[in-house]
Amino acid sequence: MAKVMRMGRAELKVLDLEKAVDYYTNVIGLEETGRMGDSVYLKAWDEYDHHSIILTKSKSAGLAHFGFKVETEDDLAYFERKVEEFGCTTTRVSNNTRLGEGEAVRFILPTGHQCELYHEIDFIGKKVGHVNPHPWSLESKGIAPHSLDHILLTGDDLKTVTRFFIEALNFRQSEKITTVDGEEMLGTFLFTSNKAHDIAFVKGPDAKLHHAGFHVEELHDVFRAADILSMYEVPFDITPTRHGLTRGKTIYFFDPSGNRNEAFAGGYYAFPDMPTVTWTEDKIGQGIFYHRRELSESFMKALT
Amino acid sequence: MAKVMRMGRAELKVLDLEKAVDYYTNVIGLEETGRMGDSVYLKAWDEYDHHSIILTKSKSAGLAHFGFKVETEDDLAYFERKVEEFGCTTTRVSNNTRLGEGEAVRFILPTGHQCELYHEIDFIGKKVGHVNPHPWSLESKGIAPHSLDHILLTGDDLKTVTRFFIEALNFRQSEKITTVDGEEMLGTFLFTSNKAHDIAFVKGPDAKLHHAGFHVEELHDVFRAADILSMYEVPFDITPTRHGLTRGKTIYFFDPSGNRNEAFAGGYYAFPDMPTVTWTEDKIGQGIFYHRRELSESFMKALT
Amino acid sequence: MAKVMRMGRAELKVLDLEKAVDYYTNVIGLEETGRMGDSVYLKAWDEYDHHSIILTKSKSAGLAHFGFKVETEDDLAYFERKVEEFGCTTTRVSNNTRLGEGEAVRFILPTGHQCELYHEIDFIGKKVGHVNPHPWSLESKGIAPHSLDHILLTGDDLKTVTRFFIEALNFRQSEKITTVDGEEMLGTFLFTSNKAHDIAFVKGPDAKLHHAGFHVEELHDVFRAADILSMYEVPFDITPTRHGLTRGKTIYFFDPSGNRNEAFAGGYYAFPDMPTVTWTEDKIGQGIFYHRRELSESFMKALT
Amino acid sequence: MAKVMRMGRAELKVLDLEKAVDYYTNVIGLEETGRMGDSVYLKAWDEYDHHSIILTKSKSAGLAHFGFKVETEDDLAYFERKVEEFGCTTTRVSNNTRLGEGEAVRFILPTGHQCELYHEIDFIGKKVGHVNPHPWSLESKGIAPHSLDHILLTGDDLKTVTRFFIEALNFRQSEKITTVDGEEMLGTFLFTSNKAHDIAFVKGPDAKLHHAGFHVEELHDVFRAADILSMYEVPFDITPTRHGLTRGKTIYFFDPSGNRNEAFAGGYYAFPDMPTVTWTEDKIGQGIFYHRRELSESFMKALT
Repeated sequence: MAKVMRMGRAELKVLDLEKAVDYYTNVIGLEETGRMGDSVYLKAWDEYDHHSIILTKSKSAGLAHFGFKVETEDDLAYFERKVEEFGCTTTRVSNNTRLGEGEAVRFILPTGHQCELYHEIDFIGKKVGHVNPHPWSLESKGIAPHSLDHILLTGDDLKTVTRFFIEALNFRQSEKITTVDGEEMLGTFLFTSNKAHDIAFVKGPDAKLHHAGFHVEELHDVFRAADILSMYEVPFDITPTRHGLTRGKTIYFFDPSGNRNEAFAGGYYAFPDMPTVTWTEDKIGQGIFYHRRELSESFMKALT
Repeated sequence: MAKVMRMGRAELKVLDLEKAVDYYTNVIGLEETGRMGDSVYLKAWDEYDHHSIILTKSKSAGLAHFGFKVETEDDLAYFERKVEEFGCTTTRVSNNTRLGEGEAVRFILPTGHQCELYHEIDFIGKKVGHVNPHPWSLESKGIAPHSLDHILLTGDDLKTVTRFFIEALNFRQSEKITTVDGEEMLGTFLFTSNKAHDIAFVKGPDAKLHHAGFHVEELHDVFRAADILSMYEVPFDITPTRHGLTRGKTIYFFDPSGNRNEAFAGGYYAFPDMPTVTWTEDKIGQGIFYHRRELSESFMKALT
Repeated sequence: MAKVMRMGRAELKVLDLEKAVDYYTNVIGLEETGRMGDSVYLKAWDEYDHHSIILTKSKSAGLAHFGFKVETEDDLAYFERKVEEFGCTTTRVSNNTRLGEGEAVRFILPTGHQCELYHEIDFIGKKVGHVNPHPWSLESKGIAPHSLDHILLTGDDLKTVTRFFIEALNFRQSEKITTVDGEEMLGTFLFTSNKAHDIAFVKGPDAKLHHAGFHVEELHDVFRAADILSMYEVPFDITPTRHGLTRGKTIYFFDPSGNRNEAFAGGYYAFPDMPTVTWTEDKIGQGIFYHRRELSESFMKALT
Repeated sequence: MAKVMRMGRAELKVLDLEKAVDYYTNVIGLEETGRMGDSVYLKAWDEYDHHSIILTKSKSAGLAHFGFKVETEDDLAYFERKVEEFGCTTTRVSNNTRLGEGEAVRFILPTGHQCELYHEIDFIGKKVGHVNPHPWSLESKGIAPHSLDHILLTGDDLKTVTRFFIEALNFRQSEKITTVDGEEMLGTFLFTSNKAHDIAFVKGPDAKLHHAGFHVEELHDVFRAADILSMYEVPFDITPTRHGLTRGKTIYFFDPSGNRNEAFAGGYYAFPDMPTVTWTEDKIGQGIFYHRRELSESFMKALT
């Protein structure tokens, strides 16, 4: 059974492009790899492809689209067919619509989000190289995450979007949040790689972004990231803590346009044979924030 | 393209069964889940399946067999066919030959190691459960790794065994060690999950075990494991350091029969589209031990 | 110039003695070393003396007294004279008024807190011993702090209590919080050892306890402590973060009687020649909680 | 009883001054604060004083002198008298013999090392300032230790040098290494602050330097330092491990002249009332290297 390879890119809408670039390059520590039109393309130091983040000037913040990379052109055609069979209309985004990208298959998720699948994208490589490489680079700036890790979106019909990811994209569900009676799904965490989540949804308005998560290595890096955010006076949503869900170590904070970012470390290796971990609504506080054990208003309300 | 799910189990030959059980339960901190004949079955606290380690009394130390778990019975049949097509003879190991296990497909690797593929194994679950689970358990003992992570074997013909894993089992090669002219392969690191390696081989005698690696979470856990080993007077091979290969943080040490164990943390997420990282023989020292930058005799010579 | 050696003990008033003992032994992980009357005596694993915490059954929570240990009986007499000269009345607490203790010099701080100086206390030693000792013990339970680290109290007249510690007890001030014009002192951090603080005061009602802080080694231990608190459902005040003041890594939480505890790691080495670090009231948020950058109501209001 | 405040400076003899400066500023990450004659003056980012390391061009490597800072001019006179009373001749080093320094009291230790006591030295301060300071600086380079921590010297008569530090300088002995019968002292660890050691000696030739230790905060920083050393191809003596003695986490490595450096984190708080921890010669391996449990030849032999 073919698998989608990974969360490959997220196009974030930003209100002030230069402020955004300054933040994503100096505070987050991504590398600018190109510009086209109103968009700036960026990659993390440990990614090989041309970009994982696209910043696009816009009148409102939010997620313009996100894309999963698949392993082959055959996989692209296979998932295109599966998405169509599920009942979603697909279109082909032509080559070089955006910088460094090949053709993509585009469709709208049951939650209203613009999603793409793609195989082709320019290869840039890493500054440490791949012959006798050093494990990290002294030249990194800011938080310096390894890569884009996952995104979390909101939507109304989590059962359908879960079914979509499982049936059309061959994802598995690692965790879910349900009402105490188990009837309604309030959160769904889905994976295609062996990470605890590649994408997740919580109950809320359709077509909105909750956060884009960047992968850092250890607790120490999460804490260091928090220090750096305070040095740059970046507003926090959530200071260092652990998630019950995924067990990851985390901080949440906002980019200059109000898009929520996460620095995320850890999380178990997920495998298709694991039972879906279930969090009941009465324990949702510790499911989300294992220490505080209650949700914060800003965490629930701030969406872009 | 179907994928093998993960390194599922390793059967280690031990000279003194009770000493081995004492070590693997108290020092490593695995949980005994059953006994049958001359074998004791163990799992790590973060594994769902009945066992990942089997200790079998024997006249010499080493690896009796190891097995990869596949996702479905169809996958089992698919890989059985692929292994046969590669030219390896397969046999079916019947149900309950060992405790808690279903049928397995058995064959001998080009390097002479006994390998199995299986889908069926009893589900035990975790003490933390999978409804509103705590992230770890206060009851854990010893090093308390999350899971069996990978094994490293020695063999003479690394090109063929690499080709076997790629062609018959759909693995990818994350890293390799070659002579400076690139002609000969001295080490090969292969993955099927998104871990930096699920199995690896270094040049050496056929059919031998170099080490079995257990997954711990962070540098701190590797260091804590090292402290615990000193408290129990377990002999070290390599004290805490980083690998250049995989970038993991590591220690090596020996079980009472002389089988080498590793506590391994970190390592990047590997994806099928990454270029194979190459280490040339002149840099093999820092490839293996990034800090010391030279191989030790014991690391090269001690095999079981 | 003689120096007070360290914060040696704190006697906490608790509402339910057995609940308190259960919490301080199992969750905090102190060791019970004796009982007398309505009091239970406890020490941390890395302390040599008979006790550092006394739990005394009482109708209200709070701090019954705390004591600094001095190096010699001469130092005791010297500081007794200095305290008297400052204008505080001292009394001698006789031998064995409490378990394991010798004579103490008792007086009331300008902030109304009961304070003692003492030299004599029974020596118990550590389980790891002091001949070829292991660095820590596998038998530890719970958070397992190394030692009582410091206490933070509230009081109205911080200038006078600061002057008392500097003039009568030869402390130095490592940090202070002042109004923006520098006129009024809102917080004062004082040291006699080389720790960033041995005692501190923030503006508030006299004779109240803000928290008793326990020393853990690293960030990882603070985070692990936070996990343990969630496993035991202990209420948090502040989840893992860094202090601007002292630079320490910290969590705050409440014992079953409502006394605030802290697990504290890090903090610089303070020396008498360092300038007093000053935090102005407009930056008090990041001075206290470097990440969140604002005070919480509970942190300001909950006192015992 | 007056106390010496801390290890304040070490003057290292280096063979190639510019190579040394490059190493100590870029790899270690000290800041150059001045030059005079054949000497370059450096401080660590978390130190207030003008310098803690002086690099002086010389025909051989080693330690030209080291100095302890005392709190007052009275203390200087007091210890000058005590050193004389012990039987060591003292001389006054005049003002500005070296850059930024006031008068010092100079004498030769029983082990033949040049030692100074001083009070006056120019105040430079920290880049983070001491009003509302950030906890660390994004501008730091290399390993970026907080401060010079301690030095370890070799000498023949460890009993006398121990007695000198205790009797003349009011130090205490935190730990010692003895022959199994306890008759002979093979190592002595001495403190005047609350650190586990401010100076130490091991049995060996007189007047030699074993290493100068720099203070980093946590295990993670020791490991990061090790990574950086490999990036700069600095030769290691000892890769990351724990000391049994002091319990610190450590790496040893060599500057371009062959002077051994250490990056040292942790170590307990020492107090004058602690019993001297004793390591017997049969356990010296784990006393020095808690994991490896045996001494290495280079660690014993390489002295400057």
